[in-house]
Amino acid sequence: MQRAAVLVRRGSCPRASGPWGRSHSSAAAEASAALKVRPERSPRDRILTLESMNPQVKAVEYAVRGPIVLKAGEIEMELQRGIKKPFTEVIRANIGDAHAMGQQPITFLRQVMALCTYPNLLNSPSFPEDAKKRARRILQACGGNSLGSYSASQGVNCIREDVAAFITRRDGVPADPDNIYLTTGASDGISTILKLLVSGGGKSRTGVMIPIPQYPLYSAVISELDAVQVNYYLDEENCWALNVDELRRALRQAKDHCDPKVLCIINPGNPTGQVQSRKCIEDVIHFAWEEKLFLLADEVYQDNVYSPDCRFHSFKKVLYQMGHEYSSNVELASFHSTSKGYMGECGYRGGYMEVINLHPEIKGQLVKLLSVRLCPPVSGQAAMDIVVNPPEPGEESFEQFSREKEFVLGNLAKKAKLTEDLFNQVPGIQCNPLQGAMYAFPRILIPAKAVEAAQSHKMAPDMFYCMKLLEETGICVVPGSGFGQREGTYHFRMTILPPVEKLKTVLHKVKDFHLKFLEQYS
Amino acid sequence: MQRAAVLVRRGSCPRASGPWGRSHSSAAAEASAALKVRPERSPRDRILTLESMNPQVKAVEYAVRGPIVLKAGEIEMELQRGIKKPFTEVIRANIGDAHAMGQQPITFLRQVMALCTYPNLLNSPSFPEDAKKRARRILQACGGNSLGSYSASQGVNCIREDVAAFITRRDGVPADPDNIYLTTGASDGISTILKLLVSGGGKSRTGVMIPIPQYPLYSAVISELDAVQVNYYLDEENCWALNVDELRRALRQAKDHCDPKVLCIINPGNPTGQVQSRKCIEDVIHFAWEEKLFLLADEVYQDNVYSPDCRFHSFKKVLYQMGHEYSSNVELASFHSTSKGYMGECGYRGGYMEVINLHPEIKGQLVKLLSVRLCPPVSGQAAMDIVVNPPEPGEESFEQFSREKEFVLGNLAKKAKLTEDLFNQVPGIQCNPLQGAMYAFPRILIPAKAVEAAQSHKMAPDMFYCMKLLEETGICVVPGSGFGQREGTYHFRMTILPPVEKLKTVLHKVKDFHLKFLEQYS
Repeated sequence: MQRAAVLVRRGSCPRASGPWGRSHSSAAAEASAALKVRPERSPRDRILTLESMNPQVKAVEYAVRGPIVLKAGEIEMELQRGIKKPFTEVIRANIGDAHAMGQQPITFLRQVMALCTYPNLLNSPSFPEDAKKRARRILQACGGNSLGSYSASQGVNCIREDVAAFITRRDGVPADPDNIYLTTGASDGISTILKLLVSGGGKSRTGVMIPIPQYPLYSAVISELDAVQVNYYLDEENCWALNVDELRRALRQAKDHCDPKVLCIINPGNPTGQVQSRKCIEDVIHFAWEEKLFLLADEVYQDNVYSPDCRFHSFKKVLYQMGHEYSSNVELASFHSTSKGYMGECGYRGGYMEVINLHPEIKGQLVKLLSVRLCPPVSGQAAMDIVVNPPEPGEESFEQFSREKEFVLGNLAKKAKLTEDLFNQVPGIQCNPLQGAMYAFPRILIPAKAVEAAQSHKMAPDMFYCMKLLEETGICVVPGSGFGQREGTYHFRMTILPPVEKLKTVLHKVKDFHLKFLEQYS
Repeated sequence: MQRAAVLVRRGSCPRASGPWGRSHSSAAAEASAALKVRPERSPRDRILTLESMNPQVKAVEYAVRGPIVLKAGEIEMELQRGIKKPFTEVIRANIGDAHAMGQQPITFLRQVMALCTYPNLLNSPSFPEDAKKRARRILQACGGNSLGSYSASQGVNCIREDVAAFITRRDGVPADPDNIYLTTGASDGISTILKLLVSGGGKSRTGVMIPIPQYPLYSAVISELDAVQVNYYLDEENCWALNVDELRRALRQAKDHCDPKVLCIINPGNPTGQVQSRKCIEDVIHFAWEEKLFLLADEVYQDNVYSPDCRFHSFKKVLYQMGHEYSSNVELASFHSTSKGYMGECGYRGGYMEVINLHPEIKGQLVKLLSVRLCPPVSGQAAMDIVVNPPEPGEESFEQFSREKEFVLGNLAKKAKLTEDLFNQVPGIQCNPLQGAMYAFPRILIPAKAVEAAQSHKMAPDMFYCMKLLEETGICVVPGSGFGQREGTYHFRMTILPPVEKLKTVLHKVKDFHLKFLEQYS
């Protein structure tokens, strides 16, 4: 009997009961209805229920893996069961997951990782010497020469040294391994530093300034920590530029109800793809210095810059170039990751954080906090090492590495341009240049009748749009409401990761869908 | 000039300024004094300071990597610089880090991992077919057949299926893949579920019952979440048994000032090494059912049982064997890990959690919360798969796998007995049988004069003892005060992971140190 009860549960989809925020999907509603059929005990008999749970966790929203992605999963299962649709596959353009879209791993990185994993291979003639050299170096820094040992909580020493050397080369400004903390992806670093920063109650509760549109990790962590989210709007009319006057406005208004202490910047922008100019970064740093704000610089897309007139400038570099008064005062944490760039190694959860001007006592607190989780995955740390310490000219693997890197970045640049051009040919779609990162975030016209239809389904208008796009074309993108946008404007975020030919098909399908949608609701 | 400023910072040890809790070390004090020499800006100029930081994070303590470990690192550096000590190496018996102590990885596990990492090796004749079969199965379940893709936030489907099949075999009771969540080590699962459970304010704030002595992850997470720690004491006189009357006492007293909703059990015990009897588990489950407590069962040492009269029983199994009234009502989360057992793969940060009777809406909330961090490291998930799905009789790798597993577990059993016997021969040391896990937690006599000396150094008496042990012998163990203990009793936790001969040396050194210590302070 118990067995039967368990088996009944299998087919159901308990995840779809609507925890993802305001925009419920019909999929979620259906699944929720399905749940009620099962002889489930009533919620009041449980200790842990929606009513009794942590209200801050309940308030968390995370659109990138929200109801639209659950729906995509359901559709995939329907296709597998042979149910006919107007398409044969779901294309997951909702998340920056390069390998899942067919991008091949960088050979050198995987060779070093395999050697570290199974050191018997160090004797194999089929691995290049430079990969072996890197693997030996990493293993020598691991307890018992094994990736299976815990590392120091701050990360493996020699990898932190390699990160510091990388930053020094990149910026022409010295970096100190003591300031480097290896992390479980960039998300982990960002939430850890925010965890340290949040305090106070009522009007003195910590306010955290974030761009709108934002990457929803920020709003989620702010909610989890019960901090106050302070929105500053990026300027869509001006290629999503960051405007210091807008920062000033947001700060001034926030001071009425919280204590704004943190300013988060995403550069290159996610979901917006803009690359900040050096001048703009200087202005932001000056603003943070003036207003005593702790700066978080999310720079995970630093290798993903496509526009020929744009260049990535790190906050760290600009901070140091602005002189001693700034470089010895402004508190900055910047973040990088193995997941983006040209390597796209999301699954290893590798990343680092560099902190500048962190008080020595706080560094102690940070290491203590990190120690509770023991250490970031050591395999992810090893992957980070290869990202910051790739083959050099003259080394055996250099040529292949360069070719692979160039192939990925060259293609991304092509696809960025292609996407911008094609979207801008569609009436009712406006797309800023994709200067960097790996997403398009076009503005879409949603006719009044469609807005009404969405409201009758209790959905945000752009969720309604994206749900229909998914159901009619199999293309999964994330509604702008999941990132934040100016009232009355609508967008979606789509990755440009599918291979060129597939991306062209996707773009044409979106175009056709959009025109049909406009017609249907005009 | 900036460069000079950065370089000055290099040599210092900003981590040692005493964030680890009550027991300050002389090392920390020295480092703190050293910091003051540097031309550091005064703390009031920083935004993030000890005064302004998150007070809950400040309150966190984590002894396993606390001041004693910082001191161990300093001593290692001194040895490297050629400074003479009464010993030639530091032995890190503070943490259950098997590979760092020379334990070899399980070959099959690493072969599968290497194949997954670098699939070209699938064509290599030097890998066994069963390892290739496992690797292909895992890769087929990964996006783009790559460990570098994000997995579902709950974990790779086929790995969750393998975990469920493992539990079903282990318990003779069905398990459902829908109830399995892969995690970043067990610590991640435990803190995630606690995060969901904590709510309320003042007297209705969630209370979490934990054993004393405990593994300090629990107290750390409780502090971070601002929950209320409710201590129940294990019975040292009775092999650290869990006594339900003591649970009842602790619960009754806690109800005056909080809302106790969660009961945490560690079985086999960490740091105490006891293995709970089936009867005791039944009593605990009945108590949880009666008192409406959410059960957390930390079972990461389930493979580490050494006493011939002890056997591991999972809470899940006993819950189901107790009948429908229990199995359909009691909410349970149990945890396992790749880090312990016979594989000791700590660095991969693999683990899983099985939830029973979790409300479907809460499952949705849980997946949402996990989604914010995207997914656990996929390499750690793959490692977890091999742990639950090792070679089977008849397969090519079975014999070697069995030999390696038996070697590790057989040695641990030997070392458990050796440690108990030797400690109990020392006057002033009393050690319960090490029935399971991988630690000794002996009670030590600390003479009144030593207690006074410790107080004059502002240290807990057992921290004073362990610091001296480290300084005089190079052996690094963790004071009992880091785990909690009955007032006026003193202990330390020492791993039994060093190889047999080395462990014998360690034990004799501890003995000699202890006798000298007694003499010195008598």
